[in-house]
This record gives sequence, structure tokens and C-alpha cells, in this order.
Amino acid sequence: MTHVHAGAGKNTRSAVDSEGLPMFSKDTDTYAIPGFLANGIYAGIKENVAKDLALIFSVVPSTVAAVFTRNAFKAAPVLLDMERIKSGKAQAVLANSGNANAATGDAGYEDAIAMSRSVSGKLGISDELILVASTGIIGHRPPVETVRGRAEELVSGLHENGIPKAAEAIMTTDKFPKLSFRKGSIGGKEVSICGIAKGAGMIEPNMATMLSFAVTDVDIDIPVLDRVFKQTIDGSFNAITVDGCMSTNDTAIILANGRAANEKLKVNSRGLSRFREMLFGVMSDLAEAMVRDGEGATKFIEIVVDEAGSAKDAKKIAYAVAHSNLVKTAFFGCDPNWGRIIAAAGSTAVDIPLSAFKLYLEEIPVFAAGSGVVGREKELAEIMRRPKIKVNLKLGMGNKSHRVCTSDLTFDYVKINAHYHT
Amino acid sequence: MTHVHAGAGKNTRSAVDSEGLPMFSKDTDTYAIPGFLANGIYAGIKENVAKDLALIFSVVPSTVAAVFTRNAFKAAPVLLDMERIKSGKAQAVLANSGNANAATGDAGYEDAIAMSRSVSGKLGISDELILVASTGIIGHRPPVETVRGRAEELVSGLHENGIPKAAEAIMTTDKFPKLSFRKGSIGGKEVSICGIAKGAGMIEPNMATMLSFAVTDVDIDIPVLDRVFKQTIDGSFNAITVDGCMSTNDTAIILANGRAANEKLKVNSRGLSRFREMLFGVMSDLAEAMVRDGEGATKFIEIVVDEAGSAKDAKKIAYAVAHSNLVKTAFFGCDPNWGRIIAAAGSTAVDIPLSAFKLYLEEIPVFAAGSGVVGREKELAEIMRRPKIKVNLKLGMGNKSHRVCTSDLTFDYVKINAHYHT
Repeated sequence: MTHVHAGAGKNTRSAVDSEGLPMFSKDTDTYAIPGFLANGIYAGIKENVAKDLALIFSVVPSTVAAVFTRNAFKAAPVLLDMERIKSGKAQAVLANSGNANAATGDAGYEDAIAMSRSVSGKLGISDELILVASTGIIGHRPPVETVRGRAEELVSGLHENGIPKAAEAIMTTDKFPKLSFRKGSIGGKEVSICGIAKGAGMIEPNMATMLSFAVTDVDIDIPVLDRVFKQTIDGSFNAITVDGCMSTNDTAIILANGRAANEKLKVNSRGLSRFREMLFGVMSDLAEAMVRDGEGATKFIEIVVDEAGSAKDAKKIAYAVAHSNLVKTAFFGCDPNWGRIIAAAGSTAVDIPLSAFKLYLEEIPVFAAGSGVVGREKELAEIMRRPKIKVNLKLGMGNKSHRVCTSDLTFDYVKINAHYHT
Repeated sequence: MTHVHAGAGKNTRSAVDSEGLPMFSKDTDTYAIPGFLANGIYAGIKENVAKDLALIFSVVPSTVAAVFTRNAFKAAPVLLDMERIKSGKAQAVLANSGNANAATGDAGYEDAIAMSRSVSGKLGISDELILVASTGIIGHRPPVETVRGRAEELVSGLHENGIPKAAEAIMTTDKFPKLSFRKGSIGGKEVSICGIAKGAGMIEPNMATMLSFAVTDVDIDIPVLDRVFKQTIDGSFNAITVDGCMSTNDTAIILANGRAANEKLKVNSRGLSRFREMLFGVMSDLAEAMVRDGEGATKFIEIVVDEAGSAKDAKKIAYAVAHSNLVKTAFFGCDPNWGRIIAAAGSTAVDIPLSAFKLYLEEIPVFAAGSGVVGREKELAEIMRRPKIKVNLKLGMGNKSHRVCTSDLTFDYVKINAHYHT
């Protein structure tokens, strides 16, 4: 992957590669957003020497929205943030990798508070304005003393070009940091959004071990931001899956500090539409980067179910295919084994009419009129070697659709997950 | 695995090994059931030279019950059998491996009929008394001419000790044939049941899945047999999962020819209870053998959810854990990564009360009272090296339970499924 600079100025965005996937710039000022500082350091939480503590700070209190895991076993920082977010205001996000602070009970909750206190004094803000996020090993209390001992270094290194360092510090099994930005004009003012994310396994709708932090200088009220953020997450993070698992720690947060001095974004306004589009771009880039970095992944698979009788049916079938280990191993093996796709689609309770059902791999029909299409084997073999493949199921039952992106299941997925230690 | 003979006579059963899993006897007469003949030959359907055509024949028309896949894309032989079974009588099962006759449309349905016709004349019975089952590659019409050409050899080799040959002929990725029997006294008459099965991934659409055929000499009416068969399948085949997939070809059939001359089994009778127990033993043996032979499996994992508020919740959580690739890879890595188990359990919509929830690996508590139990790492490391491991989740919500058995997810699972070709 070549690192390129997407350029600056009006209407700029993260560059994409030949497959339409986002690429990341080494020019750290690309990701600078007015009024935000960030840093990422190695504090000693992880055993391997790699950045593990991140801080994002807004120079003024920001409007905040967040989406959290729906797992019954929510980690302590998730429970803490769910309380703190109620004020609608936040000014910093303190995040660590290496320890999830999950399944740690009341003591872990106190640890999460203590972590926020380790930086609040140095930042000169109240604890309650700090959100905490953790990712890593479950069942061990976080090393609060370690964090406290490195808080001075973390805060003193805050910098407007520090967001890429923060992106590095939240990585776990990720092979590359995930960042994306959009800059554009809204009502004559330049508005910027930058997002970072981590996640390479346990990725699933409803957001699994996935942390994502977005910062923007747009001026927007809480309920409007909240709604837009949830809409963009539904179309991005909730439309990807690597292994169908949902974590205890998933957290997506957006801070909006109003520094762009735009006219405050109103519901149903053109400005809000433009902002939604920009934010969706950032979140989609991050979501697709997570699939591309799916643990051990060699392929990006886009599953599109069309002509469903209901949105629910379309989604059910899309996920049945996306979660099928047999489908995922066939893609790894470059095997156009479409029988596995129809078997997965057929295993839901949706009563698909055989005669109307059609299945395509890219543009090639492989099943139609009740039986397999023969004679296209050479073209299929070529398609299966591509790094990005579209699977299109047309149910012939209605006009509803659902799209989900996933990765293949590989030796490396097993290797990474069999040997990542508790 | 040592092949041992479990002995003959009254109340005998398939022998079990030190882990309580069924073993298979080389003494073919162990599996003989009065009034049934069987055979298995290499007919040339498979590319590799291994048995691929099986026939089981009852000397008299038998009472029959069957359970089929609920997949929307049912294979042709499944559709044919669903029609033929309506009569409540059958006298033979013709099964092949190497070709699933699935996604073959109307032509495939005619092929299934033609396959039954290839042996009906030689057996001297009507086509309608022959059930057909196929497993193998999807999307290719079965080689009817090949089957017809070997029908004479197949029928002439029918033998009362031929059931093990039939068991071999239905194998695809199976590493060993799966057979089990029970013999015992019901109302003073000796009654025998023998079952065979194939399946090593809950689904292998390309190789098409799970086939199971049981034969018994018990005298029983259709509705009673039907009910008992479905009950025992719920507790056996429906309580295992390898990869959560359901095939186009899954078929379980039982033939009861009445040769034991017992007083016909009545609903709520002691005799029926005894028969159900014996049949459940056979089906459970076969189901557990399939898990043990799960593609690439190195471990047998028993997941028991207790104290659920409803049977539905218990089942939902048991399958969430059993289907979690992260849980399955952790077991492969011998890693007591219980965080993944609670994350999987918590990812369902069931609102598990954290304070009451308990998790055990074998007898060792790993999570209780809202947080992880520490200090048992050595014992856990020992348990994780065992070939059979019990995971017990106690939800603290009620008194409902569900049990499901699965295998780990390994390099070999990926290898087998990435490289098996269409």
C-alpha cells in the first residue's frame, strides 16, 4: 500500500487506492482538525513495546455523541462513558490498548475513573469531561499506576498533528493504523472531520472490538449530532463483519467543538446533509479499512442481497452468507464454490422461491432458473483471484436490499486467534 | 483409535473409549440387524477410488420416518424423498457420495428417480419404496449411467453384514466411518438398532453434509416412529454444530421392519421408553462421532447453559458460544481465554444479570460475582490441553438448560475447506 497525500484545501478527502479503499497519509497535518490536540505514547501496558496510550483533547468543551456495544458484559469504561455522555459534553478521550478493563467488576469501574483522573488535573478540566476507552485482554484490572506514571508525558506531548499517534496507540492485532478525513465547505465555512479506528477481528454489526473516535470542528447541537452519528454508523460500522463476534468494549465517539464557526447545523438543512455525507465518508473509510485488515484477511468480500421481500430478510440472508465459514474459506481458496453461498442463503428461515432466485459473482451469473449456470468456469476462476469480490443475490421476492462487507477465513485468522493470549 | 468389539447378546452397545466417545468394531456382524441387507461399492462417482455407492435393503417393506434439511435450496433427492415418505413405507435406501444432485433443477429430480429405478427391478420392488440420498459436489447432475452400470454389482453384493460397507460408501471428508448399535430386550423380544452416518462439517454443500440411516427390527407404527425419531434427533444431531452451516442435502432416515416380532410399541409404554433410549444412544453416538471428526477438529467441546429464564434463551446462548470463531480458535490454541466465552454469551439479546452469572471450565469457576476469578491459571492450562472440555454457563435467571457440542477451529479446517474443489 502506497502512502499518498490527498492534498489540502477545500473538499479534500483521504486518498483511495485502485480498489477504492482508503489509504493513509504520512503527512500528519493532513489529519489536524482546528481546536483538537492529540498524542499517543508507549506507557508500558502492552508487553511488546508499541504505543498503548492515547489522548485526544479539545481546547474547548465539545458536543459529544457515542454508540456503545450492546453486549451484556459491557466493560467498565463503557459503563463509565455511558454515564458521562449524558451531559452531552466532553473534552477529552483517554484510550489504551493492551487491557480491556472488562469483566473486572466494581474495582474495574473505579479503575476507569482513576484513569480519567490521572490526566484531568494536568489538562485542567473536570474528570466528568473525560471519556475512557480500553481494548485488549479481558479479565485483568488495568495498570492504573502505570498510566498515572506516564500521564505527564502523555499530556505534555499533545499536539495538533498528534492524531496519527493516537491512532497507533489504540491498535491491537491491527496491521496498520486506521485514519480518514474529509474537509469541505459548509455555508461558506471550512469544516473538517477526522476519524481514527482500531479493529481487525471481532468485527460485527453492532460494533465489535472496535474503537472509533471522530473529531470535527463543526458547530452542531447534541440531538442533531447524535442522530447523524448513529445514521452514519448504521451504514458503515454496522455493515461490516469479520467473524460475527461482538465485543465487550466497542465504543464509537464523536466530539464536535464548533471551531469552524459555521451557522449551527439545523435538521433538514443542506448544511447538515453535507456534513452527514462527509461523516459517512470518514466512517465508511474506517469500516472498510477494518475489513481489509480483518485478522488474516486476504480478500474483501461485498455481499449484496437484492429483491428481498423485507429489509429484515435481506439483512438475515446477507449475514448468513457473510458469517458462513464455508463461504469464507472458499474465498480464501479462490474457489468459485457458489454451492456454499446458496446453502448459506437457504439456511435462513426465508422461503426463497427457487425459480426466481439468481446469484452472481461480480457480473457472472452462477445460479438462475432453479439450477447452476455452467460454462463460465474460466471467468469465475479469474474473478476469485481478485482482492475485492462482489457477491450479489437476487431473491425475486420484492425490492428490499442489504449490503454487508466481510473478509475471508484464512490460516492466519486461526493463527492470530489461537495464539493471542489472555 | 482402537477398534474393539463391544460383545454381543442382550443389552449390548457400541463400545466407548476413555473419553466416553463411541468406538467402531471391525466385526461386521456386530452391526447386522435381522431382515436387513446392505452393501457399499466403488462405482466411479468419486474421482479418488473410494466407495461411493451404498444400498440398504429391508427384506420386507418397513415403516419409515425421516427428517430433512430445512434449507430453502433442498437437493433433488431430498425433494423426492419428501414425496415418497408420505406413504409411510419404504424398503430401501440408495445413497451416493461424490455428487449432491443439488441445484440441478427439474433434470436433477428426474435423475434421482432414475437412480432409484436403476435398482428397483433388481430388488424386485417398486420405485416408490426406494429413498435416495446424495452427498458431494453441488451444481452438477449425478452420473446416472454410472450408477446404472454398477447396479447389478451393488444389488448382488447385498449382505446381512454389509452395513459397514454402506457406512464407508457415504463418506466424503470423514476421516472414519460412523456406526453405532444397541441391542436389548423389549417385552421379552430382542430388539436391535444400527445407525450409520456421514458428516464432518455440519454442512459441506460441496460435499453435502450430514446423512444418517438407522435400521431396526422393532415393530412400531408410523406416527409413533415418526415422533420418537424426531425426539431423538433433537437431542443428538440437532445438538451438535461444527461450523453452524446447514446443507442442501441433510437427511436422516429410519426404517423399522418389525422382524423382532415384539408387541407393537404403544405411546407411553415402557417398551417405547426403552426403544427411545436405545435409539437415542445410537443417534448420540453418531452425532458425537461427527463432532469428533469435525473438519480439522482437535477438541470436543461440550457447552452447557444452565439457569436460563427460557429454553429459547438457553439455546441462543449455547449456540452463540458454539459458533464463535474466537472461542473455537482459543480452544485450538489451548488458551483458557474465557473472556471470549462471556463476550459471545453477552452478544445475544439476552439480558444476563452480571452479578448472578457464573462460568465454569470443567469444574473450575472462571467468572463469578461480576468479575473474573483469579488464581486458577495452572488448573485451567491443564484443562485446556484435554481432548474433551466442558464449558458451563450458569445464567442465574431461571431453571432452563441447553446443551450443544462442537469442535475447535483449526488450521486444518481452513485447509480442508479452502482446497476442496468444486
